Amino acid sequence: MSHDMRERSLWAWGAKGKLPDAGARTGLAGMVKALLPSATPVVRDLPRDEPDVPASTVAIPAELAEFATQAPRERALKTRGRAWPDLLAGFHGDFADAPALVARPRDAHEVERVLAACDAAGWACVPFGGGTSVVGGVDAGLARGDRPAAVALDLGALAGVHEVDATSRLARIGGGTLGPALEDALGAHGLTLRHYPQSFEFSSLGGWLATRAGGHYATGPTRIDELCHSLTIIAPRGVLETHRHPGSGAGPEASRLILGSEGALGVITEAWMRVVPRPRWRASASVAFKDFEQGVAAARALAQSGLMPSNARLLDANEAKLHRVRFDGASVLLIGFESADHPLGAWLARAVELARDHGGEVVSGPSESDSETRKATHGGEAGTWRQAFFDAPYLQSALLSIGVLSDTFETACTWTQFPTFHAQVVAAVQRALDEHCGGGIVSCRFTHVYPDGPAPYYTFVGPLASERSAALAQWRAIKTAASEALHVAGGTITHHHAVGRTHRPWYDRERPPLFADALRAVKRELDPCASMNPGVLIDR
Amino acid sequence: MSHDMRERSLWAWGAKGKLPDAGARTGLAGMVKALLPSATPVVRDLPRDEPDVPASTVAIPAELAEFATQAPRERALKTRGRAWPDLLAGFHGDFADAPALVARPRDAHEVERVLAACDAAGWACVPFGGGTSVVGGVDAGLARGDRPAAVALDLGALAGVHEVDATSRLARIGGGTLGPALEDALGAHGLTLRHYPQSFEFSSLGGWLATRAGGHYATGPTRIDELCHSLTIIAPRGVLETHRHPGSGAGPEASRLILGSEGALGVITEAWMRVVPRPRWRASASVAFKDFEQGVAAARALAQSGLMPSNARLLDANEAKLHRVRFDGASVLLIGFESADHPLGAWLARAVELARDHGGEVVSGPSESDSETRKATHGGEAGTWRQAFFDAPYLQSALLSIGVLSDTFETACTWTQFPTFHAQVVAAVQRALDEHCGGGIVSCRFTHVYPDGPAPYYTFVGPLASERSAALAQWRAIKTAASEALHVAGGTITHHHAVGRTHRPWYDRERPPLFADALRAVKRELDPCASMNPGVLIDR
Repeated sequence: MSHDMRERSLWAWGAKGKLPDAGARTGLAGMVKALLPSATPVVRDLPRDEPDVPASTVAIPAELAEFATQAPRERALKTRGRAWPDLLAGFHGDFADAPALVARPRDAHEVERVLAACDAAGWACVPFGGGTSVVGGVDAGLARGDRPAAVALDLGALAGVHEVDATSRLARIGGGTLGPALEDALGAHGLTLRHYPQSFEFSSLGGWLATRAGGHYATGPTRIDELCHSLTIIAPRGVLETHRHPGSGAGPEASRLILGSEGALGVITEAWMRVVPRPRWRASASVAFKDFEQGVAAARALAQSGLMPSNARLLDANEAKLHRVRFDGASVLLIGFESADHPLGAWLARAVELARDHGGEVVSGPSESDSETRKATHGGEAGTWRQAFFDAPYLQSALLSIGVLSDTFETACTWTQFPTFHAQVVAAVQRALDEHCGGGIVSCRFTHVYPDGPAPYYTFVGPLASERSAALAQWRAIKTAASEALHVAGGTITHHHAVGRTHRPWYDRERPPLFADALRAVKRELDPCASMNPGVLIDR
Repeated sequence: MSHDMRERSLWAWGAKGKLPDAGARTGLAGMVKALLPSATPVVRDLPRDEPDVPASTVAIPAELAEFATQAPRERALKTRGRAWPDLLAGFHGDFADAPALVARPRDAHEVERVLAACDAAGWACVPFGGGTSVVGGVDAGLARGDRPAAVALDLGALAGVHEVDATSRLARIGGGTLGPALEDALGAHGLTLRHYPQSFEFSSLGGWLATRAGGHYATGPTRIDELCHSLTIIAPRGVLETHRHPGSGAGPEASRLILGSEGALGVITEAWMRVVPRPRWRASASVAFKDFEQGVAAARALAQSGLMPSNARLLDANEAKLHRVRFDGASVLLIGFESADHPLGAWLARAVELARDHGGEVVSGPSESDSETRKATHGGEAGTWRQAFFDAPYLQSALLSIGVLSDTFETACTWTQFPTFHAQVVAAVQRALDEHCGGGIVSCRFTHVYPDGPAPYYTFVGPLASERSAALAQWRAIKTAASEALHVAGGTITHHHAVGRTHRPWYDRERPPLFADALRAVKRELDPCASMNPGVLIDR
């Protein structure tokens, strides 16, 4: 992709050039009408590409001058993440909360200088990787609060694959490295991280680690935590570099306190990551189930089989429809295996047998391929789904621009909890959509399945008020109804979207109070002035 | 096994009745002479079974009276763990450091009363599960230090499988539950934890969690951390119960701060654990390698293959000899798969192919079985090795009683580090044995193999001085040489034996200083009087 194609939109998801154009948005409006009769989508003008950013109230400190800027566009781009309220604010051209300055340190010493400057001036510091947070994790305005200023610490210059140890399958990678650059550099060694969050193209390794991103694999060790061999975080108090080992029982694992710290303890500047050779063999099948319950039972059997498929994604009927996989009211289970070491016939055969045992009908595959015949397996339901997966965030921005609300939330619970949990959550969100949007659709898929439970991922779509504050109130009502329902039903407030500021109220209720005290004590130790990403995870 | 057969020895490993008798020890002396020409083993009298315990200097507080005791035998049994210096002290009948009292709370409230009493009186509190620590983790004398008294908090009454959720494959289990009782109770549901540390028969779930015990599976998610769904710890400040979920990205994972806390933050009273059905299918093979290096390369290929064998244990020539598996100087790789879901022919075939590709010769198997034909696979090299594995701790006590030093240490490093690492560690230990014992043997096996590196486990054997302090000095010299060598070569000070007090000096050097500060801050928060297991992991 050319540089231009990757230039970020000021307000929408991802690359400026990839947002659906007026024609495509008109087509989208027609599709929405068919799907949501109560909606009246209107193709609105997009915001202009020149941000209206207020003048900085503070000057760039001399010691940061070499690598900091107050250019309006840079400040606008670092104002916030890409949560739905962020899209809304950006769509309305609101950059009142832009950070006072953007610092782009080129090495660890310059990172330390930024942190020291913030501590000295009482400024908030917001580590900014790819800026794709969907939970208010990188919000300059909220971070600033009543401080004189907020600084965006742009990790973009701390990027690249610095070192590769092919024997131990490890790579030392800069925290600011974005997904495509990371995979390109590893690819030159025949290696890959196998980590593809939906934000892949625009999110960074440091961000994945700081938010405990969910993994590519649908089962087994898949979270970024498990791919992390060791990491380095720079806190205001100094540098913390964890010991390098494949496994240790020496006290609580240091890296596990940093993973998920969301910038509130410091800046993750680099990590040794576990990498693997590019898969050579693939095997896949799609199985349809008349009833969602059958699909759930099959997904559970697969998760508990020990087969560890790389893909085991269950889509309910609405999800299959929204993702253009299937339109007949059936649920679909996408099963896939991949390996750089061996053909996968035996694995897939047993997985398909399990799915059939639970009432599934194979609708695509079983098919196997090796690298030479790859294209064949990228088609079918799995291929359609994959493309829709990466397009979805663009679609969300485009929907907003035609007056349609769409957002997602996700969680995890036990298999035993799931049936009641699911019924309560769907009912609560549907009720909120009916009440606040005059109707709407809720869909569900499993992004990950574990032996002890699934990670359900919900999408909701509804008509949107045209006025900004009314629109925000709609989103807030539905998000609150969803969060409240899933918390009360026993789910975690997030499986892989992180906490940020959006999920704080429910996180605070989910988190054991003594652990909150422990985290606060740790923050006092590493970040004594409480400058780091204030309001995220913990207050001071 | 009858109750009597499980009655613990006052000084030696495990059950009193299972220590080799005088005849067996005489036979052992002969074997040692053949193996270690420089040794002059002498079958010494065993210590008497009546402990000489000093009178308690403090009285039992009234609020603990119902469930505490100062009986000499109970106090003697709770004096220390089963590290080599512990065996030596016990062999010499030294119980001068017995705890002032042993409290055996029957519920959470009684645990809280013990912690409150210790805080009020300024006593040290040592959570005591199975008492099998090999690193000085449960040492009443060292915990007491300059305090008026140490209390052993016996978890034995907080035992049992309280609840089973077969759908989500979870069980809520008391922290004081020992391995056999845990497996018996789960077995009634057709379930198992699949966690068999060498201490299995006498160690507890709470101890496994507190020390991050190494797992049964040689590859993949195997550490007790990965089997833990949620846990409850009672700290002096209160109860911390982690949220129940199969996976969450909501901030740093609370349980990961407790796992490995070794009693220094509180007492792990119960946990929801991930359990599995008993395996039905098994497949195994043993492969011999002329050169250890070939075996290492094969083990690496297996660890990186994605096949995730449950067994992938490489024994070097000395290890094969000591464990009576093979006597021709070859290394042996034991490969095993198990599943409750599917036959494993394809898995084992590829594993054996990988081993052959690296110069291995199959010496047993490949063989497959299901439950009906189980006995067949328990024979052969793997069966011999398994029996020797569980007998080894008894052997260590028996060797001490005939004047032979034997102990083990373990670590983990990357595959890239391993060749140099291994050479340096073996050389350092051999040098120390030559210097301090006039010779000896060092052997190595891999207990676990990960994609990024192995967990090498070393055993050393040498002649022992007859005088107590000289013997202790020998052990200390060799242990120090080993720890120093593995730390300097880049390994972790422990893969699964924990830190305790033995490993503290090297743990302190391995641990990032800022993480040490963070841990201290957490301890101040949860254990403000620093009563919990003082000196383990952190000072106050």
